[in-house]
Amino acid sequence: MTQIAMKRKKTRPVFLGGVKVGGNAPVVVQSMTSTDTRNVISTVGQIRMLEDAGCEIVRVAVPDREAAGVLADIKKQITIPLIADIHFHYQLALDAIARGVDGIRINPGNIRKDKMVRIARAAKSRGTVIRLGVNSGSLEKDLLKKYGCPTSQALVESALRNLAVVRDAGFDDIKISVKSSDVLTMVEAYRELSEKTDCPLHLGVTEAGSILNAAIKSSVGMGILLYEGIGDTIRVSVTGDPVSEIGVAYGILRALNVRRVGPDIISCPTCGRCEIDLSGLAREVEEKLKGMKSYLKIALMGCVVNGPGEAAEADVGIAGGRGSGLLFKKGKVIRKVREKDFVESLLREIGTMTVGEKEA
Amino acid sequence: MTQIAMKRKKTRPVFLGGVKVGGNAPVVVQSMTSTDTRNVISTVGQIRMLEDAGCEIVRVAVPDREAAGVLADIKKQITIPLIADIHFHYQLALDAIARGVDGIRINPGNIRKDKMVRIARAAKSRGTVIRLGVNSGSLEKDLLKKYGCPTSQALVESALRNLAVVRDAGFDDIKISVKSSDVLTMVEAYRELSEKTDCPLHLGVTEAGSILNAAIKSSVGMGILLYEGIGDTIRVSVTGDPVSEIGVAYGILRALNVRRVGPDIISCPTCGRCEIDLSGLAREVEEKLKGMKSYLKIALMGCVVNGPGEAAEADVGIAGGRGSGLLFKKGKVIRKVREKDFVESLLREIGTMTVGEKEA
Repeated sequence: MTQIAMKRKKTRPVFLGGVKVGGNAPVVVQSMTSTDTRNVISTVGQIRMLEDAGCEIVRVAVPDREAAGVLADIKKQITIPLIADIHFHYQLALDAIARGVDGIRINPGNIRKDKMVRIARAAKSRGTVIRLGVNSGSLEKDLLKKYGCPTSQALVESALRNLAVVRDAGFDDIKISVKSSDVLTMVEAYRELSEKTDCPLHLGVTEAGSILNAAIKSSVGMGILLYEGIGDTIRVSVTGDPVSEIGVAYGILRALNVRRVGPDIISCPTCGRCEIDLSGLAREVEEKLKGMKSYLKIALMGCVVNGPGEAAEADVGIAGGRGSGLLFKKGKVIRKVREKDFVESLLREIGTMTVGEKEA
Repeated sequence: MTQIAMKRKKTRPVFLGGVKVGGNAPVVVQSMTSTDTRNVISTVGQIRMLEDAGCEIVRVAVPDREAAGVLADIKKQITIPLIADIHFHYQLALDAIARGVDGIRINPGNIRKDKMVRIARAAKSRGTVIRLGVNSGSLEKDLLKKYGCPTSQALVESALRNLAVVRDAGFDDIKISVKSSDVLTMVEAYRELSEKTDCPLHLGVTEAGSILNAAIKSSVGMGILLYEGIGDTIRVSVTGDPVSEIGVAYGILRALNVRRVGPDIISCPTCGRCEIDLSGLAREVEEKLKGMKSYLKIALMGCVVNGPGEAAEADVGIAGGRGSGLLFKKGKVIRKVREKDFVESLLREIGTMTVGEKEA
């Protein structure tokens, strides 16, 4: 009964290595390492964990020339496109481009226009993509003064005038982000920006906090935008392990049927009607299916009110009663199962479902 | 720099005890117990924990007459309005109404129209509010047949035809929900319903799963609707401890500036530039501020890129450097603080901020 997703706004695609962002490409999930970039072993290790979790583009901080110096070394040990995150020093951007990164993110709030032109020319010669990464915490001083604080209009003005700078330099492989730590500001900024440019947009709520708060803010902000067809790549910013960002990102995309990756677990809030340990069941099933990329709708239901209905709509499901439950598959009851056998029975059925449930 | 919230769609308010739902009332946060309702001690205990967390209306399952029999006893021990959740048996609804509950939720998918008329008359005589709680997992059989599966149109048709039944019985104190476990279906259903009725709407994504998945689905679904001004009361359904639902609910409302309750923590994702233990700091500050009802924006930032900007926009903030940080308050730097004193300094400043930061 999943409804179809909204029509996506058409953008002019860019290519990061083999990954297309924008145009008719799927919304790309990305993240950023939290390691010291100069520590190649730990950085590559974290990138590989991100790759395993489903991350499709990765960004690393480049705070100094030593960090820029290891980018080629990192790149050759990973399989997803590598982005260098640059602030303040244009020379670091030139270094990163020379090291062969797939893209750079520059912050127009802390890099001068004439330096941006030099970066754009270097990027053009190497086929490097540039993201103009505007951020509420580091907006140009004149815009802060003009608007009083980082409003959505200020973020959009920064994006558009810097877009003009790099475009005037003959450069066109551009993505844009206008992140704010305030969800409404971010929503309004992206909506306005998307009317004024056909550049692919990288969505994010910046500094969104620890995992649960980040999930809430990112889901609200990106959810509104994606529902309106806005957004070509997303990053959920979590204070903590970046690997946790990936599950949240796919959860948002799955909720709106923008992409169907991973298990979709439907489980009830276990009210006074519930006579099985549903919380435990949900936790165990989630744990066992961690890392699963195929889309599958799994219903874990505690009673007869909505249990049979939800289980029948799912690919596989349990409608629990007292100490036992009915096992459903593709809308049909397969058999009655004892509570202690729930997990094993579900996993056996899921194991037999491999055709037609891959990512849409 | 927080932007103003969207204009809310006007609904005709209902009153549950002292709590107004709809009209110009704030969006009300509610939850449901997961205890055996017949166990009054554990049910009241859980309701008190929900109250402490900020829950404003509570619902309990009423699966049998024994559960209905204890409702008056529960009600006199709690301070927030009590709702009885009724399925299948209209007599349980009559029992609950007679026991003095503030509202009942009935499921039109499993209660016959003629019985609904009897419930509506009883509710009218006692001033009890009724929620018509339509749910994708328990839709009327004829609608399932007509639409093939629980589409948004099917949910709306169920709501409207049952609304007509209770209204024809002369009853008007009605809230409506059209919950689906599918986020897009739920969004479309509420959008359509809100055009066709002025009854207050209770928003929810049903069977949303464990805390993180529930936060994602609920934030996406309710976020889209609240952004459009739709929704008068919300419930986040979590498979697990219902107390955890309350923080998520306020997080969603805070993100859209619909209600400003509790601390809003802005903290960065600790990239390779970060030279303090920001994850640990964020965790500790979150833990220490648990249960705080006043709104306060707190920025915990790891480096100089966005740190000073975000900290200056917050009510209180730390912009960290190597082993120390600048303490900000209301846009001004107060002093430099060593990393080991971050938490204490922040809490001391927060303790001195008590005026003007209460719920908007």
